[in-house]
Amino acid sequence: MEAVRTAVLGASGFAGGELTRLLGEHPWFEPTYLGAKDSAGSSLAEVHPYLGMSPAAGTVLRPLDVEAIGAEADLVFAALPNGTSAVLAPQLLEAGCTLVDLAGDFRLAAEDYPDWYGFAHPAPAWLDKAVYGVPELFGDRLAGARLVASPGCFATPVVLGCAPLLAAGLIGSGTIHVDGKTGVSGAGRGASEVTSFAATEGSVRPYRVPGHQHIPEMERGLELATGLVVAVLFVPHLIPSVRGVLTTCYAPLAQGATTRTLTECLRAAYAGYPFVRVLPEGAMVDGKRTRGTNVVELQAVADPRSGTAVIVGAVDNLIKGAAGQAIQNANLVFGFPETTALPRTAVYP
Amino acid sequence: MEAVRTAVLGASGFAGGELTRLLGEHPWFEPTYLGAKDSAGSSLAEVHPYLGMSPAAGTVLRPLDVEAIGAEADLVFAALPNGTSAVLAPQLLEAGCTLVDLAGDFRLAAEDYPDWYGFAHPAPAWLDKAVYGVPELFGDRLAGARLVASPGCFATPVVLGCAPLLAAGLIGSGTIHVDGKTGVSGAGRGASEVTSFAATEGSVRPYRVPGHQHIPEMERGLELATGLVVAVLFVPHLIPSVRGVLTTCYAPLAQGATTRTLTECLRAAYAGYPFVRVLPEGAMVDGKRTRGTNVVELQAVADPRSGTAVIVGAVDNLIKGAAGQAIQNANLVFGFPETTALPRTAVYP
Amino acid sequence: MEAVRTAVLGASGFAGGELTRLLGEHPWFEPTYLGAKDSAGSSLAEVHPYLGMSPAAGTVLRPLDVEAIGAEADLVFAALPNGTSAVLAPQLLEAGCTLVDLAGDFRLAAEDYPDWYGFAHPAPAWLDKAVYGVPELFGDRLAGARLVASPGCFATPVVLGCAPLLAAGLIGSGTIHVDGKTGVSGAGRGASEVTSFAATEGSVRPYRVPGHQHIPEMERGLELATGLVVAVLFVPHLIPSVRGVLTTCYAPLAQGATTRTLTECLRAAYAGYPFVRVLPEGAMVDGKRTRGTNVVELQAVADPRSGTAVIVGAVDNLIKGAAGQAIQNANLVFGFPETTALPRTAVYP
Amino acid sequence: MEAVRTAVLGASGFAGGELTRLLGEHPWFEPTYLGAKDSAGSSLAEVHPYLGMSPAAGTVLRPLDVEAIGAEADLVFAALPNGTSAVLAPQLLEAGCTLVDLAGDFRLAAEDYPDWYGFAHPAPAWLDKAVYGVPELFGDRLAGARLVASPGCFATPVVLGCAPLLAAGLIGSGTIHVDGKTGVSGAGRGASEVTSFAATEGSVRPYRVPGHQHIPEMERGLELATGLVVAVLFVPHLIPSVRGVLTTCYAPLAQGATTRTLTECLRAAYAGYPFVRVLPEGAMVDGKRTRGTNVVELQAVADPRSGTAVIVGAVDNLIKGAAGQAIQNANLVFGFPETTALPRTAVYP
Repeated sequence: MEAVRTAVLGASGFAGGELTRLLGEHPWFEPTYLGAKDSAGSSLAEVHPYLGMSPAAGTVLRPLDVEAIGAEADLVFAALPNGTSAVLAPQLLEAGCTLVDLAGDFRLAAEDYPDWYGFAHPAPAWLDKAVYGVPELFGDRLAGARLVASPGCFATPVVLGCAPLLAAGLIGSGTIHVDGKTGVSGAGRGASEVTSFAATEGSVRPYRVPGHQHIPEMERGLELATGLVVAVLFVPHLIPSVRGVLTTCYAPLAQGATTRTLTECLRAAYAGYPFVRVLPEGAMVDGKRTRGTNVVELQAVADPRSGTAVIVGAVDNLIKGAAGQAIQNANLVFGFPETTALPRTAVYP
Repeated sequence: MEAVRTAVLGASGFAGGELTRLLGEHPWFEPTYLGAKDSAGSSLAEVHPYLGMSPAAGTVLRPLDVEAIGAEADLVFAALPNGTSAVLAPQLLEAGCTLVDLAGDFRLAAEDYPDWYGFAHPAPAWLDKAVYGVPELFGDRLAGARLVASPGCFATPVVLGCAPLLAAGLIGSGTIHVDGKTGVSGAGRGASEVTSFAATEGSVRPYRVPGHQHIPEMERGLELATGLVVAVLFVPHLIPSVRGVLTTCYAPLAQGATTRTLTECLRAAYAGYPFVRVLPEGAMVDGKRTRGTNVVELQAVADPRSGTAVIVGAVDNLIKGAAGQAIQNANLVFGFPETTALPRTAVYP
Repeated sequence: MEAVRTAVLGASGFAGGELTRLLGEHPWFEPTYLGAKDSAGSSLAEVHPYLGMSPAAGTVLRPLDVEAIGAEADLVFAALPNGTSAVLAPQLLEAGCTLVDLAGDFRLAAEDYPDWYGFAHPAPAWLDKAVYGVPELFGDRLAGARLVASPGCFATPVVLGCAPLLAAGLIGSGTIHVDGKTGVSGAGRGASEVTSFAATEGSVRPYRVPGHQHIPEMERGLELATGLVVAVLFVPHLIPSVRGVLTTCYAPLAQGATTRTLTECLRAAYAGYPFVRVLPEGAMVDGKRTRGTNVVELQAVADPRSGTAVIVGAVDNLIKGAAGQAIQNANLVFGFPETTALPRTAVYP
Repeated sequence: MEAVRTAVLGASGFAGGELTRLLGEHPWFEPTYLGAKDSAGSSLAEVHPYLGMSPAAGTVLRPLDVEAIGAEADLVFAALPNGTSAVLAPQLLEAGCTLVDLAGDFRLAAEDYPDWYGFAHPAPAWLDKAVYGVPELFGDRLAGARLVASPGCFATPVVLGCAPLLAAGLIGSGTIHVDGKTGVSGAGRGASEVTSFAATEGSVRPYRVPGHQHIPEMERGLELATGLVVAVLFVPHLIPSVRGVLTTCYAPLAQGATTRTLTECLRAAYAGYPFVRVLPEGAMVDGKRTRGTNVVELQAVADPRSGTAVIVGAVDNLIKGAAGQAIQNANLVFGFPETTALPRTAVYP
């Protein structure tokens, strides 16, 4: 097969680093353009010392020059701050690139952007063409797609965990309370007192309550997958870890549903999917087991006493919640085996 | 004032260690009997090397000899495994001791014990006489009490956070979803692979879903405080920290209630209470700020979009969630200033 | 006794926060002036949310106005960046203040500053009058002192651990290799990628090799205490913790010295000193046991096989290594009991 | 190429888990026998839930049946407690197996075992035939070897860092002080209070001073590599991390040696070696960058002031310090590319 010339934009961030690392093991996606806003001119190893022995260690980062990217890349992974790729996208797409966006720029409807992201969407025409890239749910739309909105880290386990249960009528379509726990890497690489070791060790804190921008993404993802409208309230918490997102969803339990029927529904939905691990009854999700992998762990428990279904999911926020899922999407867009370059077993403990 | 001869039972555990440490600063509660099941014969400093420079460092631990305790102590703090103090209590109480129990043995109604704790209560007659020791809510029942059921670490911030809002009709009395996050010290001092550093670093996991024994305690505590019946679903999670419990409650929001009215209700309820810190609108609870203190931090947010009130609370599980609250209760029982020997400022960072 | 009007300069930093917290329990040192370079105008609780329930929570920070400080304070604790207090000191001292400096500005001889700190000392005349404030070694010089150079966090356990052995001839006066391990709070409160949680979790790294400015302080402290000249090589390492410094010294072992004679020498030297804990043979220092306390733990082991004495020491870098030792020094300067407001028992675990 | 039937003994431990995980990516070493002392009868996924999606997840662990292993395996990795493989080895070797031992059973001379390991060696005849498996130093002896003593985690960076400098006369052959820092996984998987999260968070402690059994291994490794006799004093410390070992060596600096000559010596010695990363002058080793990899990071600094060379090294104790190095050794024994199945880039942060 021919190599796919691949650009990574935002290569100096955490997700960009992971994209570059994982692509180092990919036989067909060949990193030809590493773009960064502020670090252009430095080598990858200077920007990410941990990549000092990776194949691309000596590659020099370049500015976000859309023309050059369009000319030199067939596939573009954009891991840029929210609001950036929406500006770059039209020109890249018109130049013929396939764009997999890791930010929130193509996940919502145009009318949602002012409220949830604080900007009017600059390329609404492209929004409708974007495929929301949860490969296990929308894989059939990915082959040949031009623009993929790779999902957010919190939305991934929520949508994967709730969609089949909602579709099967095992949970009701009222309000879902989503309690999220995340390591600090989700806040990005920039230094801040909030994510310093001193402030984070021994701490647990909610943040951005009640207006986190993954709320409309979860609602839209579930509606796309099931046709049903739900209301989500999402409260994220920062915990003293680096990687990993765990979400605990509290949803209305349908009459008669049990832990067994919930679990079987999830098992049936994801049978044969290489990156979904539905735990048996009684087993508990552990975010640590997903570290460094593209796997999502799911667990469902019925509590008839309070009329609630508890759906727990965990992913590595930088892999299945970002770089890994983006590559998984691109694998499907280009017709490569879905698991190419994507680990399934954690470095543990 | 005369010294109160004080026994600490379970002195070799985490809560027992903290009781002993805090009592070292207490002018009137004088530790005269340190009891332990397995470590009798060792000195306190051998059992807790960190107490090697405390006043009681050389005190030798003694067995759980009820007769001796009854003869040598006026006040007994029992920090024993669930099911133990219920057996010891009658004899101690008949000997004239005041008993502050830190386990779950006197928190529920007799009929709840088989289901939630797995044993029939051995002293149901005493259950009715026990005061549920949330001092901020039931302080008027504490003066002169003979038997105090000091609350569980998770129940404390939930009951304190929700009771005033429930009583004021700002949250509805339907189902409350309580999502708990706790450090490993809540599991006690015994070594297990689950709470090893290797398994815990980088991990976040739910446990004991859906049948945690703090569920009926939360429901009963709220009913005792408000007269209203609510259903609670509680899902605790283990996070990579040592101390601290943070609970996030999702309750039905009353029509018209706002973040402001919720916050003002809590502020009014706890004005003048030395250990309750109600955060202003927009500020977020941080469990780390409660470490080493007897303080509870509370925060309430209204989300009219989903019809939910989010009530967040945090305590140091070994202080306000155990040893500190027990001493606070005993201070009130004996008529001492409530804050005696109880810190309000964290060792931070 | 009359209150001593007390200024804390650098109140917005970690050491300044701890000074303010500890002074909240001090019966005689009354904080009347909280000074800060950049946070003037904010209240203490805004700058340090964890101090929100401390007595000084509402106090507004003021600029570093030397004239006002001189007029309003009898005692000044300066916890400012290196090079700052040397500039402020003369005016404060001439105004009659007693100055306890927590930076490195008065720890060395004038000729050492250009090499080790990168500046020529602006007040060399005062250097000779400064007392190097290791209270256990130089306590007799503290009563009534005007200027105290409170020692560095790494130097404290090294000087305390090695001085008595050196004086007794149990270790030789050749080269001492000092290997330091520190939590991130030693780097101060400012946000940097190096001390972010993401970079620090799971990391261990040396830094500033081989020119750390505590090297001449250790050499000078040992010479002041023993009259003997030693050469020190010091290599500090950052480890994933917040508080605590542990130093491991490798010194030439004198002929015939044993673990027993080393240990007994230390025990004799510090008998009756309230903040020094010399561990018995076979016990190992644990930095965690010093957290939140003003205690130093010391341990000495002889290895005749390699001709080396290993002297291990640990302190809480923000207490015995900074704020606590400064207060201990001031207690002795003013003739108050040495232990006033200084904890000896850790919040553990 | 034909598959090599491969046994992993001690499959239930941390090193055994990592061996199994890494072998899952190996094209020729095919795990045919997973042996364990206590977990026989359970599947790999039951014993190591994190391996639930690995190829061998369903493989049932078997007892340490030497006869069966000898019949069913060509290559045996033994990751067993010290003293175990020395007993099993003769029979396995006589059955024709190649044995790569990860314990200390074949690293020393026979006369060293009673003193350092507390047992008389049961198979001294085999000791002389064992190759000490630091592949970068003794790679020429590995091809076709029957018995490989894979080095200890601490000894690996020490021997790799010091041997070239010693051989070149840049450091003297007197006493080397080795200060080690390790995460808790080095203590194995068994639960103990010492390695609990509660005791380890915020802690740093020396242990096994002064008699750690890696001392004679370091001395012997350096002598094997250089012919020179050195005395080592080694003091390990436990730090709050899971993986990673960092060693700081203090060695006598030869007259005229500089940071540059030390660094160049190491660079020259390891040019072309895929798993050794010699840092440039001024850069500092970071153990976190080696996590999950088979890489060793090395750094050398001259301190002429004290006449000392500081040589710092770091490895992932479970990979380059255990499972990875064992596979690297086996790759060379069997003539496969040295890097087969061995990662060089960390999962970071």
